[in-house]
This record gives sequence, structure tokens and C-alpha cells, in this order.
Amino acid sequence: MTDRTDLETFPNHHIDRDYIVTLTTDEFTCVCPKTGQPDFAAITIEYIPDEKIIESKSLKLYFWSFRNEGIFHEHVANMILDDLVEALEPRWCRVIADFGIRGGISISVDAEYTMNGNRDGGN
Amino acid sequence: MTDRTDLETFPNHHIDRDYIVTLTTDEFTCVCPKTGQPDFAAITIEYIPDEKIIESKSLKLYFWSFRNEGIFHEHVANMILDDLVEALEPRWCRVIADFGIRGGISISVDAEYTMNGNRDGGN
Amino acid sequence: MTDRTDLETFPNHHIDRDYIVTLTTDEFTCVCPKTGQPDFAAITIEYIPDEKIIESKSLKLYFWSFRNEGIFHEHVANMILDDLVEALEPRWCRVIADFGIRGGISISVDAEYTMNGNRDGGN
Amino acid sequence: MTDRTDLETFPNHHIDRDYIVTLTTDEFTCVCPKTGQPDFAAITIEYIPDEKIIESKSLKLYFWSFRNEGIFHEHVANMILDDLVEALEPRWCRVIADFGIRGGISISVDAEYTMNGNRDGGN
Amino acid sequence: MTDRTDLETFPNHHIDRDYIVTLTTDEFTCVCPKTGQPDFAAITIEYIPDEKIIESKSLKLYFWSFRNEGIFHEHVANMILDDLVEALEPRWCRVIADFGIRGGISISVDAEYTMNGNRDGGN
Amino acid sequence: MTDRTDLETFPNHHIDRDYIVTLTTDEFTCVCPKTGQPDFAAITIEYIPDEKIIESKSLKLYFWSFRNEGIFHEHVANMILDDLVEALEPRWCRVIADFGIRGGISISVDAEYTMNGNRDGGN
Amino acid sequence: MTDRTDLETFPNHHIDRDYIVTLTTDEFTCVCPKTGQPDFAAITIEYIPDEKIIESKSLKLYFWSFRNEGIFHEHVANMILDDLVEALEPRWCRVIADFGIRGGISISVDAEYTMNGNRDGGN
Amino acid sequence: MTDRTDLETFPNHHIDRDYIVTLTTDEFTCVCPKTGQPDFAAITIEYIPDEKIIESKSLKLYFWSFRNEGIFHEHVANMILDDLVEALEPRWCRVIADFGIRGGISISVDAEYTMNGNRDGGN
Amino acid sequence: MTDRTDLETFPNHHIDRDYIVTLTTDEFTCVCPKTGQPDFAAITIEYIPDEKIIESKSLKLYFWSFRNEGIFHEHVANMILDDLVEALEPRWCRVIADFGIRGGISISVDAEYTMNGNRDGGN
Amino acid sequence: MTDRTDLETFPNHHIDRDYIVTLTTDEFTCVCPKTGQPDFAAITIEYIPDEKIIESKSLKLYFWSFRNEGIFHEHVANMILDDLVEALEPRWCRVIADFGIRGGISISVDAEYTMNGNRDGGN
Repeated sequence: MTDRTDLETFPNHHIDRDYIVTLTTDEFTCVCPKTGQPDFAAITIEYIPDEKIIESKSLKLYFWSFRNEGIFHEHVANMILDDLVEALEPRWCRVIADFGIRGGISISVDAEYTMNGNRDGGN
Repeated sequence: MTDRTDLETFPNHHIDRDYIVTLTTDEFTCVCPKTGQPDFAAITIEYIPDEKIIESKSLKLYFWSFRNEGIFHEHVANMILDDLVEALEPRWCRVIADFGIRGGISISVDAEYTMNGNRDGGN
Repeated sequence: MTDRTDLETFPNHHIDRDYIVTLTTDEFTCVCPKTGQPDFAAITIEYIPDEKIIESKSLKLYFWSFRNEGIFHEHVANMILDDLVEALEPRWCRVIADFGIRGGISISVDAEYTMNGNRDGGN
Repeated sequence: MTDRTDLETFPNHHIDRDYIVTLTTDEFTCVCPKTGQPDFAAITIEYIPDEKIIESKSLKLYFWSFRNEGIFHEHVANMILDDLVEALEPRWCRVIADFGIRGGISISVDAEYTMNGNRDGGN
Repeated sequence: MTDRTDLETFPNHHIDRDYIVTLTTDEFTCVCPKTGQPDFAAITIEYIPDEKIIESKSLKLYFWSFRNEGIFHEHVANMILDDLVEALEPRWCRVIADFGIRGGISISVDAEYTMNGNRDGGN
Repeated sequence: MTDRTDLETFPNHHIDRDYIVTLTTDEFTCVCPKTGQPDFAAITIEYIPDEKIIESKSLKLYFWSFRNEGIFHEHVANMILDDLVEALEPRWCRVIADFGIRGGISISVDAEYTMNGNRDGGN
Repeated sequence: MTDRTDLETFPNHHIDRDYIVTLTTDEFTCVCPKTGQPDFAAITIEYIPDEKIIESKSLKLYFWSFRNEGIFHEHVANMILDDLVEALEPRWCRVIADFGIRGGISISVDAEYTMNGNRDGGN
Repeated sequence: MTDRTDLETFPNHHIDRDYIVTLTTDEFTCVCPKTGQPDFAAITIEYIPDEKIIESKSLKLYFWSFRNEGIFHEHVANMILDDLVEALEPRWCRVIADFGIRGGISISVDAEYTMNGNRDGGN
Repeated sequence: MTDRTDLETFPNHHIDRDYIVTLTTDEFTCVCPKTGQPDFAAITIEYIPDEKIIESKSLKLYFWSFRNEGIFHEHVANMILDDLVEALEPRWCRVIADFGIRGGISISVDAEYTMNGNRDGGN
Repeated sequence: MTDRTDLETFPNHHIDRDYIVTLTTDEFTCVCPKTGQPDFAAITIEYIPDEKIIESKSLKLYFWSFRNEGIFHEHVANMILDDLVEALEPRWCRVIADFGIRGGISISVDAEYTMNGNRDGGN
């Protein structure tokens, strides 16, 4: 299991303003829980901070914690979103996980958190 | 005829949240019902799961079932959409089929399912 | 003059659903009515079918009928739109004509038909 | 000063429909009023014609009239927009001027005319 | 600290119209306050002028003033936005800072000013 | 087995000159002989004709003859090259087959015929 | 038949130096001699002038002379090359004709003239 | 250590011809031996087979064997090349490893085997 | 006429080594000597310095000196090459002028100077 | 002055083989010695190691040492090449420095070291 306590935060010094932080990596890998084979993804995180902003080195370590974890594609984006929402308590957050081709098919999962629970978007 | 029972599903473990799954393939082929000649397409499927998510290997086999089937371009996107809606009972679904050039003209078909029957979009 | 009776149609078998068909060609040519010189354009047609869908071979022949016709850029998109609306009676239709550079300037014309006469869009 | 009488027009034969004409050039040059040095820009004009459409050769000559004129970046887009609105009396018009890099910084100016004076867009 | 008095302005001669000025540079560098190592970013500024437009040479000098300043990624976009709003008193302003990859992760920050304090956009 | 008698030819009317004909398709499919699953490839054929040039409709039919044939990636390019050399007796010929991703790996095979049997190139 | 007397020339004022002139158009069309249907191509001409350089307006008219001519793909490049060699008597010349997709296959023909009759290249 | 016995081969059925097989993956990861942190690379393998061709599933497993191995960038390409040469005994082989950005710098390593030991190339 | 005395130089401090300097601009304009209409080009200069390197501000002024000069496309590249060779006395020099589309045709001219008068190239 | 002792090396463990290491950064900045203004460049280093390979962290620090140094464009590439040759004693080395646009002109410098002093290339 990933340990969400890994996600450290800084105080947000621009709390009076909604602004969007986007974090992107091409270097995410986990393991398929059915076949045990490695999966690779590009991950994009967008959020509007409330009182906290993410410390990027802890995010790097958090991504690495998935390296040997068996997890389905649909769960990756939702689990990262859940962990970020718990750690950051953001005003809005969106996670997109774009996985490489398997069997001729690529899969992308796009999950979003808003305060009222509906899809909404940061713009 | 394609056999929609081929489309297997998993339970959705993030049912409390609207999220979008996008599945893309460049490896779809069927046959023109008028000329008997092969057609090739890129297929994009987007959906917001309700209680089920698609099992991707069964989707691969489902795509293969079109290989020797005679079917018009406009029907491909609509038939895939119908089969996915029946198998997944999703909150929203969209299918785009982009066919290769014939006679200097390329054709793309973009069909969408919403619960109330109108075009709406997942964003 | 183009002869719009060239545009043949099939019955739409998915009449219960609004879906978008996009037809694109890079192989459209007509003649400048002022100079008699050839003009070249890429044409994009988007429509939501009602009871009819276009037969693509007749569309190819329809495009060819412009080959020796003298017609202004602005008229090309509007005339194609008029002919398609008469032949297809679609729920929505849009025609975009992108012409090559003349005198350092390129021209694109984007005309749209909706049932109530206002610009609206298919999405 | 540019002479807006250079901008000739044709009657619009599709007056019953809002459609968008886009004119683009990569070959616009003027002179910096502070340094006397040449500036280069790509210009995009979009408009919805009312009773007139622009004659493109006169637009080419109009662009050339800026060649030795000293004018600031922000004024280029606004002046072209003013001249087009006066000559065409369009339903809507937008002018975008993308200038080359100076001092490591590029500047783009995007000005828009609507009948009620607010930014609105043609789509 | 950057000295916002560096940002000089011209009077806006098109005050009756909302138009968007976009300024872009790929040549922004500052220093990480934790490690003392250089950071590099592309900066995009968009604004709708009210009574003032920015003088671009002073903006170049303003960017250079960050060269040896220790500042976090999230603060760069917000500080530039604050300084521009104070100097320009614009109707709307948006600053995007796209930083290079560190630890496999790239960061982009997108901050926006509107008169009523909410995110809104210039279009 | 493919039937190379399908490849029809025309006489080359420019026999006094070495020139290169390049034929490209994105619409090639065959079947994996181990798994029975479809494979997809882009095929590029380059040749310098001697007394014959290929008739392109027969090439289209020849490509289709692979549709249900079980054949390894490395053999596809070599077999097409062998069949073309037998049918065309060209001065030089090269076949490149670029297959889609399987197991995270894509395969391309590049085979070449010269009169003296060594790799040489047409340029 | 095309009339090569259409190709006018200017004297080359830099006869002491081998230099390459490249002329490119995306606006070439002719007719398939078998089906009577239009074909479209991009044409690239490269040559090293000897005593003559091509007059570009006459080249435009020369391209237009193919508009209603029935001619095979392989002949287009060779015929243009023959006509240019006769009109220009160049030190070297190369013609590339890239035709649009027919039956899923695109064709490019690359013909070259050198003084000694072998393929050689201008670089 | 990687176990090169993992690399299985098939007999080459086109031994009379030099042809190039190219295998590419974007899904290679290993570990930095100094910091223990994951590294990611795209790997390209090119070879001219002699009596053996690589079995691609065993190559996939071979790539995976690096997943938890500590290895420097320069060694990755050379070790893969050594293992392929031992397993395939090819006529020629080249391995390129393109690693992701670290400290603002990306590294690519390009190693080549020829029978006589010098760099040579397959074209 | 352009005044080649405008081209100032610095001494080359790395005279013991052949190295290539490449200077590129998208901001070159001159006038067609037949029609008086503006022409626009991208200019690329490559040279191997001997005892002098070009001072780039003087090159900028040199480019500007063509702004109102009537000159044919083929002459632009050759004249710039002549002027650079006279001013720099380089070991090798190449000038490429890529002009915008006129009558559907774009023209590029590529002229090269080597000490022995033949085309050779710097690589 | 930069201090070339900053460039640390590792022993090359593949000394029996010529292989190419390519190091690339988009994050190089120095200062114009005439104007004192910052310059930005992308730097590419290619080399064939002999007994030493570069330690990449020391290269990062070496690049940073140019941050406040006044140096001409032509000297940057040559100085980096000189320092690398002294530190690495490579079999071959090439340095390319691509600088941003100044006065509408961009400059790239490409310097190469071979054992016999002539330009040669690693391929």
C-alpha cells in the first residue's frame, strides 16, 4: 500500500486567490495485479490550493511508492486523487493517468474532486 | 454479428465520483458491406462508469469480432456505443470512429449517450 | 452550376440519437471567377443527421462538379452548406473551406446551419 | 497614416446567415516608432459579414500600407480592427497580431468588435 | 526583492475596448530558495488593459531582476501577477509560469486576477 | 499463402532513367502465427523500376491477401520484397514494415534488394 | 499534351557557382487516364541552373496545363523532369511528385537528371 | 545481474539477405546505483540478423529484469548490446538508450557492434 | 544597392579549429523588381570562420538594407553569399533563402561558397 | 573564468568499443560581455569516451558556473569543448550551443574535436 503520510505540504502564501498548480511526470510505473507485469503511465495533477501546497520532493517519493504495487489503471488515478485531497484539502483537484498501449489499446483515467462532489473544472 | 456478451466488466470501486475512462485503439478493421473491401479506423471510447468498468482484454476481443463483419461507417460508432451502454450501463459514454481516406474523403463518426438522451459531454 | 441532385442519401438507422458525422477532403478545386485561375481548398463537413445520411461516393462526385466552376471563396462554403441542407435535411450542419495562400493571404470560410437559424455548434 | 479607403468590399450574398471569414497573413511588417527598426507580425482577421465582404487584393494593399509606418504593437491590432469595422460594418470582427521576439519577449494583441461593445466571440 | 517600480507603462489609447495583450518569454530564470540551484521557466502574461499598457523593455528588466532571487515556483506566478496588477491596474490579468523538470516532475502555475476576485478568463 | 500472381505490372516508359517509386499504406493487417491475434503495420515500398512498374490496384489486393494469413513480423517484409522482386524485376527495391506496439515493444523490419545482393540504397 | 514552350526562362547571373533552386507547390492536379477521376499531388522541383533560371509565373501556368490531362503518376514526375531539362538545360534537376491516397495507398515518384545520366544528388 | 539466458531466439529464414530489425520501447526502468532512485529510458535496438532473430516476448522479460537493478546510464546501452551480441551473434547491432532529464540534463548513449569492431552503421 | 561595408567583424579567437556558425532570421523582406510588391523570406547563413566572425548587430542592419531594394529571389541568396565572403573571408559559407508562397509556389535558393569553388558542405 | 577542475570523471568500463554519449540541456545561461544582458542557450554535448566518462552532476555545476560570466556566443561552444577535451581526453567530442533570438536573429555554434584536428563526425 502507498503511505499517504509521505505527502508533505507547505503553507500557501496566496490564499486569497484561486490559482492552479499543475504537476506532470512521465516517470510513473506500477504493476498489473492480474499478470504481475509492469505498467507505465504519464500522470498529470492539477489543483487549486486552499491552505496547503504540495512539497514536490515528497510527491516524487510518493510516485515511487507505486513502483512495486499491484493496482488497476482505474484505481491509480482515483487513489492518487484521494491521497492528494486528504493531504492538501484543496479547493479543487484533478488527476489524469495516461497508460501505455496493451493489446493495441491505451487507457487514460481522468478523476476530479470538487467541494460539492460534481465534475466542474478549474477554469 | 458481434456478440456483446463478449464485453466483460469489473465492479467500479469509485462509485461515489464521476470520472472519465478513455480507451483508444488504432487497430480496428471491418469490411465495407457494399464492396467487401477492408476498412480501417481509430476508435476512441470515453465513459463515466456507474457500477461497472470495462475489462480491457474483452474489449480487445470485441474489437476483433468486427474484423470480417460488413458494416457501414456510421453504424460502427453507434453499434459500439449501443453495446457498451448495454454492457456497462454507464452514466455517460461517447464513441468516436475515425476512418481512413476513401476517394479522397475521410469520415469520422462521433456518437454519445447520456442518461436523458441529449448530447452533453463529460466535462 | 453544381447539380445538387448528385447528392444521394441513405436512411439513418440511428435516428433516436444526435451524432456527428465529419467528412474531410484535401482535394477540392474550383476556379477564380475574376482571374480564371485554379483555387484549391480543404473542405470539412460536419452534420447531425435526421432521417438521411450522405452517400460518400456521391459526395466525391459532387466535389468534382466544382472543378471547372468559377466561384468566390465565400460562396463555396455557403453553397455546399445550402446543397447539403437541401439534400440531407439535417438537424445541424457546418461547412469549413480552407483555401490556399494568394497574395500572401489565406482565407477560411466557416458556415453553419441550425434549425433556428443561429450559430450554435454540434457539441 | 494608413488610408482605410483602400479597403474595398463586395456585397455579401449570404446575408441571411451568420458565417465566419478568417484571413491570415505571415507577411506583415511595420516600423517601431521609438527605434525606427522593422517589426514583423502574423495577422489573423476573423469576421461575420453583414452586408459586405472584404475584397482580398485590397486587403493585401492595405497590409502593405503599414510597411513604412511607425506604430506600436498594441495599436496595430486596434487600428486594423477600427479600419475593418468602418469599411465592412460587420456583425462581429476580431484581429490578432502576433509579433516576433524582441528582447526575449514576444507580444500578441487580440482585439474584438461586437455590436454591443463587449468581448463575445464568433462561435 | 524585485522592485516593481521597474515596471513602466504607456497610456492605453484604445480604452473604449476590451482587448487582450499576451507577452511570452522562454528566458526566465531564478534560484531555488532551498537548494540555491537555478530554476528556468517560460512565462506567459495575458491582460486586458484599462488605462495603462506595459512598456516591454521595462518588463524585460523586471524579468532579469529575478535572476539571483531565491523564490518558490508557486510564488513566481503570484508575485509577477501582484506586481503587474499594481503597476497596470488592468481589467483582467493572468500569469502562467512553466518550470523545467526536477526529479522527473515539471510544475506549472497559473494565477489570474479579475476585478471581483474570482477566476474568470479573458475570452 | 499469398499468391504473387496477383501483382500486375505496366511497362515502364522511362526505362532510360533510374527513378524511385514509393508506395505507402497504413492499412496492412495479418495474423500472429503463435497467438492467432491480429497484427497491424504500416508498409513502405521503394523501388527503381527496370522494365515494369506496379499496378497499384493489384498491390491493394495483394496487401489484402495477408489479412487472414499467419505470418511473423520479420517474414512480412522479406516475403513482400521477394514477391515484388519476382513480379517487377526491379533495379533496386526496399520494403519497410512498421508494426504496432505489443508488450510495450514496437518492431520495424527493413529489407532491401540490390542486383548484387548487398545493402546499397536508392539515393 | 502539355506545351513545354510555356516554360520561360531568365538568364542566370551567378553562372560561376553551383547553387540549388527549390520550387514547391501543393496545388497540382491532373486526371487519372483509366478512371477519368481527378488526382492531386504536391510537386517539388530542385535544380542547379546552368545558363537559365525558370520564370516562376510560367511554371505556374505550366502546372495548370496538367489540370485536364490524363496521365499516370509515374509519368507526371518524369514528364515534368523532361520538360524542365529541355527548357532549362540545367546542370542537375530532380522532380518529386507526392500523390494523395487512393485505395489506402499513397504514391510518390522521385526522378532525377544528371549530366552523365546516373542518380547523383545536388548536395 | 541480468540473466542473458532469458533472451530466446528463432532461426532466421532470410539468411541470404542483410535486413535490419528495429525494436523500440518507451517502458524501460532501472535504478541509479548512487542514489537508489528510479531512472527511465526509451531503448532502441537495431540489428542485422545472421542465423538468429530475437523472440520478442523474451526481450520484454529481459527489459523487465533491469527494473530493480542499480546500473549507470553508460552501462545500460553497453550491457544490452553485449547481451544481444552473445545471444544473437548478429552481423551488426546498435543499442540507443535515451534517459529522462536529471538536474536539467538528459543523457543518451549509442553503442554499436560490428564484426570488425569499428563503428559502421547498418545503412 | 546594399552596402557591404555595413558588415562588421570581430577577430576569431578559435582559429585553430573548423567550427560552424549558423545565423537564422525569419524577418527578411525585399521588393519584387517586376511588380514592386514586397517579398518575405527566412534566411539561414552557415559559415566556418577563418580569421573573422560576423558582428551580429551589423548583420541585422545589413538585412534591413534589403527592405526597399528590388531584387529577384535567386539573386538574394547569391548576393548575401558574395557580401559575406568578401567581408568574412570564411573557410566555407552557405546561404539559404526560403521565400513565401506566390501563385501557389514557394521558392528556396541554397548557395554555397568553398575555397575551391565546388559545392562541398561543412559537415 | 570557469574552473574546469569542476568537471569530474568516472572510468569508462567499455573502453574496447567506440560509443557515443549525448548530453543535452535547455537550461544554460550566461551574460553578454558587451551589454551585460542575460543570454540563454540549449547546449548539446556528444563525445566518444576513451578512458573517462563525465560525471553528470559535475557537468550541471559546470554549466551553472557560466551564469554570471560575460562571454560571446562563438566562445561558449569552443570553451566548453576545450574544457571537456582537457577533462575527458575523449576520442571525439562535439559541442552545439543554440542561442535565443536577439534582434530577430538566432545564433547556433557547432564545434568539434577530433584526434587529428579535422571535422569528422561520430557516425
